[in-house]
Amino acid sequence: MLIFAIRINVSQSNANPFKESFRDGAGWVDQMPGFISNHVLRPVNEGDPYVVFTIWTSRQDFINCVRSDAFTKGHAQSGTLPKDAFSQSNKLEMHEVVQDSTRPDLPPEPHGGPFKMH
Amino acid sequence: MLIFAIRINVSQSNANPFKESFRDGAGWVDQMPGFISNHVLRPVNEGDPYVVFTIWTSRQDFINCVRSDAFTKGHAQSGTLPKDAFSQSNKLEMHEVVQDSTRPDLPPEPHGGPFKMH
Repeated sequence: MLIFAIRINVSQSNANPFKESFRDGAGWVDQMPGFISNHVLRPVNEGDPYVVFTIWTSRQDFINCVRSDAFTKGHAQSGTLPKDAFSQSNKLEMHEVVQDSTRPDLPPEPHGGPFKMH
Repeated sequence: MLIFAIRINVSQSNANPFKESFRDGAGWVDQMPGFISNHVLRPVNEGDPYVVFTIWTSRQDFINCVRSDAFTKGHAQSGTLPKDAFSQSNKLEMHEVVQDSTRPDLPPEPHGGPFKMH
């Protein structure tokens, strides 16, 4: 199981448009094979980023998603957000799930080595 | 719904003891009221932190946990990890869940203002 997170620094004044954009635009991901879930998180403390993360059955499912036409199309939609909504570049993070309390029998995701989006 | 994350930079040589420590020691959290789930994540790319996050039904449930005897006792156990396993101090992050694809009818967690552990 794999988690892919986008960590986004949004200036306070643009926080609401950001949230609406994600609520409206993220539905396409649910249809991808191996997709488990998607969360949108608002930081409690100033200076921490918004986080959008998706959970995948395996690294291969995530890679298949990134290479799909649906991915390109879905990201074109989120381009409607004003450029100055981002006070820094997004940070992408990928983690292998070692333990999930809701699935005690899940074997840890094998270590697949580094991965870069671009 | 609230997510509390500990982001831990572990030097490569100590990565395995770290994981074992968490697998053995994190069971007490499951018993706390309002606890939903706990995940332990291994970074795919060098320089990214290990992440341990717990999901709570509400901010109040998390605060009750932090103030409990079980919390103090549970954290005493994880003190068995060698000090040099941490290349920097841990970073704590708290996020309010705005959207969870597995619970489409979940209302976004209300904005509760800043929170500091210490």
